[in-house]
Amino acid sequence: MSDDKKIGSYKFIAEPFHVDFNGRLTMGVLGNHLLNCAGFHASERGFGIATLNEDNYTWVLSRLAIDLEEMPYQYEEFTVQTWVENVYRLFTDRNFAIIDKDGKKIGYARSVWAMINLNTRKPADLLTLHGGSIVDYVCDEPCPIEKPSRIKVATDQPCAKLTAKYSDIDINGHVNSIRYIEHILDLFPIDLYKSKRIQRFEMAYVAESYYGDELSFFEEEVSENEYHVEIKKNGSEVVCRAKVKFV
Amino acid sequence: MSDDKKIGSYKFIAEPFHVDFNGRLTMGVLGNHLLNCAGFHASERGFGIATLNEDNYTWVLSRLAIDLEEMPYQYEEFTVQTWVENVYRLFTDRNFAIIDKDGKKIGYARSVWAMINLNTRKPADLLTLHGGSIVDYVCDEPCPIEKPSRIKVATDQPCAKLTAKYSDIDINGHVNSIRYIEHILDLFPIDLYKSKRIQRFEMAYVAESYYGDELSFFEEEVSENEYHVEIKKNGSEVVCRAKVKFV
Repeated sequence: MSDDKKIGSYKFIAEPFHVDFNGRLTMGVLGNHLLNCAGFHASERGFGIATLNEDNYTWVLSRLAIDLEEMPYQYEEFTVQTWVENVYRLFTDRNFAIIDKDGKKIGYARSVWAMINLNTRKPADLLTLHGGSIVDYVCDEPCPIEKPSRIKVATDQPCAKLTAKYSDIDINGHVNSIRYIEHILDLFPIDLYKSKRIQRFEMAYVAESYYGDELSFFEEEVSENEYHVEIKKNGSEVVCRAKVKFV
Repeated sequence: MSDDKKIGSYKFIAEPFHVDFNGRLTMGVLGNHLLNCAGFHASERGFGIATLNEDNYTWVLSRLAIDLEEMPYQYEEFTVQTWVENVYRLFTDRNFAIIDKDGKKIGYARSVWAMINLNTRKPADLLTLHGGSIVDYVCDEPCPIEKPSRIKVATDQPCAKLTAKYSDIDINGHVNSIRYIEHILDLFPIDLYKSKRIQRFEMAYVAESYYGDELSFFEEEVSENEYHVEIKKNGSEVVCRAKVKFV
């Protein structure tokens, strides 16, 4: 199969309510677009959520890492490309390139997904999915950014708390993956965004949280410009961890 | 000019992170699409923000009222149509129709806009804008929903407070119009959304709020299923008022 068929390519525009006070697309909206592209790419090739759901399976996002030189500016067009890098028994690596209006690659992203059985919540074997056809789409397009790494947060003093509300909840009844990104970025003072931009953002999704859960945010500055954040629900269980690197 | 040229028509899909736990498009996202369509329609006809900004003018949204029989479901296509109903000296009425995947009109919206001079912040005369050309686009397409009405909130006991954060702020440095909608809908318990849906949502934008402002929410149940909400900043000045009618 040609790489053309393996790589999905999708156009967007940086809408006015999707940019921050600097006029640059927000990381949450970019994350949303990336996950949508993953969905488009998978369903166009027969392994999307709709098809999987028929057999009681679904995709679960485990890791997301985004590394950028620049964010699209308000009203600018940009393109997201996505492809499958690896398929293992329990995980698959899906990568992305973000391309600006002039065709220049301004960033990349990596994601790691598992498939679970909706009845048992147990992971499913990706190599047998639809006769292993997902493997046909594996593509060696370069993705020159670091793989998601381990994120540790040592502090036990939360810097913020909030209760999950109506707007946080998705069709599965969980706080949606994008909302976590927004809540994490809201921990930082606006002055930081005035002088710096996010160069790398990483998320590790660990457990689901639900409507009414109290989410506590634990934040550590691990080195200059690099912050690790952990979200726990109801005081104990870890929901997700993030790494935010400013430049 | 034919009505075809006067009415703008724009297609969307209800994306997974844009639907609520019922799988229906959220009111905030619909509001975002409506305002984008207003922008597309105006710029395609020469009176969009980009053109206005060159002369130091901009559009300001004053009122928005959305009335719906149904919200698009996850992954469904839908269309937003928009046109100019009236142009007065200081205000213009722009209407919308929301059309489902089968071509059925499932809702309408009305909006009221002013134009201001960015230097003086004073309202500008719409009838002289670009030689009065906006008037050529006035269209008598029906919009069979009530006009925005007066919203009064008597209580002085806030039911919620929050501080405006990074994600709330748009390119103008203001809390963005859509975030207010989301924060207001987050006041209601999820159980209300389990048994009912929003039939009508109205917003009156009164003043701007900024990063770090403390927003207080005052809510009143004025009749069964109808709630009025007022947002004040820093304990005193009214920022906006909303009417939410469930059914």
